[in-house]
Amino acid sequence: MTMLEIITKKKLRQALTAEEIRFFAKAAAEKSVPDYQLAAMLMAIRLNGMTDRETMELTLAMRDTGDIADLSSIPGIKVDKHSTGGVGDTTTLVLAPLVAACGAPVAKMSGRGLGHTGGTLDKLESVPGLSVTLSEKAFLRQVREIGVAVIGQSGHLAPADKTLYALRDVTSTVDSLPLIVSSILSKKLASGSDAIVLDVKTGSGAIMQRLEDSIALAECMVRVGQLAGKPMAAVITGMDQPLGTHVGNALEVKEAIDVLAGRAEGDLLEVSLMLGAVMLHLAGKAETTKDGETLMREAIRSGAGLRKLKEMIAAQGGDPRVCDDTALLPQAPVIRQIRCGKSGYVRRMDTMELGLTAQAMGAGRQRKEDDIDPAVGFVLPVRIGDKVGKDDVLCTLYANSVESADSAERRIRLAVEIGVLPCPRVPNFYAIVTKDGTRMLGAKA
Amino acid sequence: MTMLEIITKKKLRQALTAEEIRFFAKAAAEKSVPDYQLAAMLMAIRLNGMTDRETMELTLAMRDTGDIADLSSIPGIKVDKHSTGGVGDTTTLVLAPLVAACGAPVAKMSGRGLGHTGGTLDKLESVPGLSVTLSEKAFLRQVREIGVAVIGQSGHLAPADKTLYALRDVTSTVDSLPLIVSSILSKKLASGSDAIVLDVKTGSGAIMQRLEDSIALAECMVRVGQLAGKPMAAVITGMDQPLGTHVGNALEVKEAIDVLAGRAEGDLLEVSLMLGAVMLHLAGKAETTKDGETLMREAIRSGAGLRKLKEMIAAQGGDPRVCDDTALLPQAPVIRQIRCGKSGYVRRMDTMELGLTAQAMGAGRQRKEDDIDPAVGFVLPVRIGDKVGKDDVLCTLYANSVESADSAERRIRLAVEIGVLPCPRVPNFYAIVTKDGTRMLGAKA
Repeated sequence: MTMLEIITKKKLRQALTAEEIRFFAKAAAEKSVPDYQLAAMLMAIRLNGMTDRETMELTLAMRDTGDIADLSSIPGIKVDKHSTGGVGDTTTLVLAPLVAACGAPVAKMSGRGLGHTGGTLDKLESVPGLSVTLSEKAFLRQVREIGVAVIGQSGHLAPADKTLYALRDVTSTVDSLPLIVSSILSKKLASGSDAIVLDVKTGSGAIMQRLEDSIALAECMVRVGQLAGKPMAAVITGMDQPLGTHVGNALEVKEAIDVLAGRAEGDLLEVSLMLGAVMLHLAGKAETTKDGETLMREAIRSGAGLRKLKEMIAAQGGDPRVCDDTALLPQAPVIRQIRCGKSGYVRRMDTMELGLTAQAMGAGRQRKEDDIDPAVGFVLPVRIGDKVGKDDVLCTLYANSVESADSAERRIRLAVEIGVLPCPRVPNFYAIVTKDGTRMLGAKA
Repeated sequence: MTMLEIITKKKLRQALTAEEIRFFAKAAAEKSVPDYQLAAMLMAIRLNGMTDRETMELTLAMRDTGDIADLSSIPGIKVDKHSTGGVGDTTTLVLAPLVAACGAPVAKMSGRGLGHTGGTLDKLESVPGLSVTLSEKAFLRQVREIGVAVIGQSGHLAPADKTLYALRDVTSTVDSLPLIVSSILSKKLASGSDAIVLDVKTGSGAIMQRLEDSIALAECMVRVGQLAGKPMAAVITGMDQPLGTHVGNALEVKEAIDVLAGRAEGDLLEVSLMLGAVMLHLAGKAETTKDGETLMREAIRSGAGLRKLKEMIAAQGGDPRVCDDTALLPQAPVIRQIRCGKSGYVRRMDTMELGLTAQAMGAGRQRKEDDIDPAVGFVLPVRIGDKVGKDDVLCTLYANSVESADSAERRIRLAVEIGVLPCPRVPNFYAIVTKDGTRMLGAKA
């Protein structure tokens, strides 16, 4: 078997065998075939596709190129969550403690910010002292003892994905369903959980901006998960505006704390409850997702969720007092309120541009090796459909320089469109995909 | 403009602009973008195709990455010929002297043997003393003085093709019409002739084994030639058996001499006359191809063709006496006759296998840097459709060792199928493609 023969088969639109797919994944992990052959293969997959069976084989083959976490020492059904990435999307920090407080263990490996989207690890690290680098032993012990831990992925999860992900970026093969699915799921399966809930974003701030593409991705992931014997469910959620009102690392931790403390309602709470409810259901801790939601609302009301976050922060070396006093989180030197400037209705947001603005302020990285500034970002209290007056606050900037605030102000003004005609709100939920099929949700559009 | 943007357009099946295509060709010639991007682009072209206009732009862009020969100092219309490559196909050595003897200048740059196909340069070099490496000045002078020269391509013709050709071989993107056409025509246009006759082979010994693929290639080349302002015509000729009876370098020179001397009739003569006639017609030396054929037959009868070959050999430093005594050509130490072994009809030949057998005997190279043995090869007097007796000669081997002869004997026996039922002959000509369209030729199949 040679890489050339495998490329030829895919070029001719033939389905590959498990052995051929394993050869390809191993070659990518070990870099034992030249990049140009991997690149030709990626383009052949992008243009000729893969069957679900092939995508499942590729997922498993990529998973098997690296370590696979063993969570068997943690009792119960471990449910993981994965988001395709959004702006102001800090659901993990809300739902992980809530789900744990409701009795389902959460052993979560998260990622860093990428492009216009934030990363849970970066957010967590804005808590003074907190570490996301735990030994495997410490990680497992923490989940056994307090029910929740959120750490960085080990460097040796699915190394084939590392090679292919970097090549896809420079060969225009990012937008391939089998490649996206195998990239996400190979790492998720390697992190060892028993079931997975997927949050597939759709809208102006999502990787997949069109609803049909997001649904196709969700359906493919759930089907491939089924084939791989791993229960999965996916929720298609809206990303036509930032999910929370806070964008930036410490700012999003603050908002998560506010939500857990019962001080903040809104879309971040709603989406966190939905995803967490599906997790509780898959973990066998709730008969229905409705029951799961009720359990979580109760954990907010009782303070159990916030206490769980506090325990987790303390266990990972962070200062748990931030949960009672968010002023202990890093604070930006330049704070500026921007007014709407005209009255009308918020009609549209360029959410990707808002994410890129936060990134440019220092909340994200331009290059992988850059440092981030935990304090910077902005709070955008307005939502699409809101009626605003010209003196209402459009946004509060938290910047590390006046120049940065000036630039962010210009970009945000352009990214948020205020018009004279009333405009409907946008939905949080579009569809839910389970092994039983796709159910469109009554979007309140 | 970046390579990534250009890959993305082709991935999305969009037509590229001339500027984008020039960027790609230049990047390939200068190796200024990584191989993996070129590979992804090649696969995108292989799978999404190119319009004739794009193929023409790619052809010209590749041509322009290197030198372009200037033949303007040679009076008259210079017509070149290109073959897609066959076995026992030494038409160039027959028609170049004949066409020159009929008054049309032939300034030909040829290639080396590749895989199972032979190369004109390798054949010519089996003439003792002959050089195919002439300075540009000497080359032009020779064509002006005696009307014909056959030399190797300068190293700096279409360097973009050199990069892309090597990459196509290892990325399964050889079989792409726009890539084949631009590869062939960029070099042909760079060699500076005024018009081009294409010999597109079809059958078991051809790159394109199916007739419809060969016709598609011929039509695409003629259309692209038209767009590029270069008159072209293509003849689809049969390659279901070796064209001549001789396969091997010195052996093919001997056969060409026999044909020019009027001693050998058959398919090599017929195809050479057809291609030469089209050349004479395009060169304005014959009203019709029929007239061209008559002129060439007369040049054989009068001995003018053989005299022209002799002049060319002498001008390029070779020993012209080989034209009168082919025993002066290199002779193999082991000569063995193989009998048919059973009586019946020759039904089929695996012509590619026959070419590979000659290559393995030493007539071709396994690797680019290998030396070839000019003396080795075989003479296969039988043709598909022939009735043979069990003691008739199937083949005469010219080998450089007994082991090599043993191996060749085994392979040739398997490659030539003799059956009990009568079998029709196979045609030499399938179609002719000109700017006015494709005319199927009354194949005597």
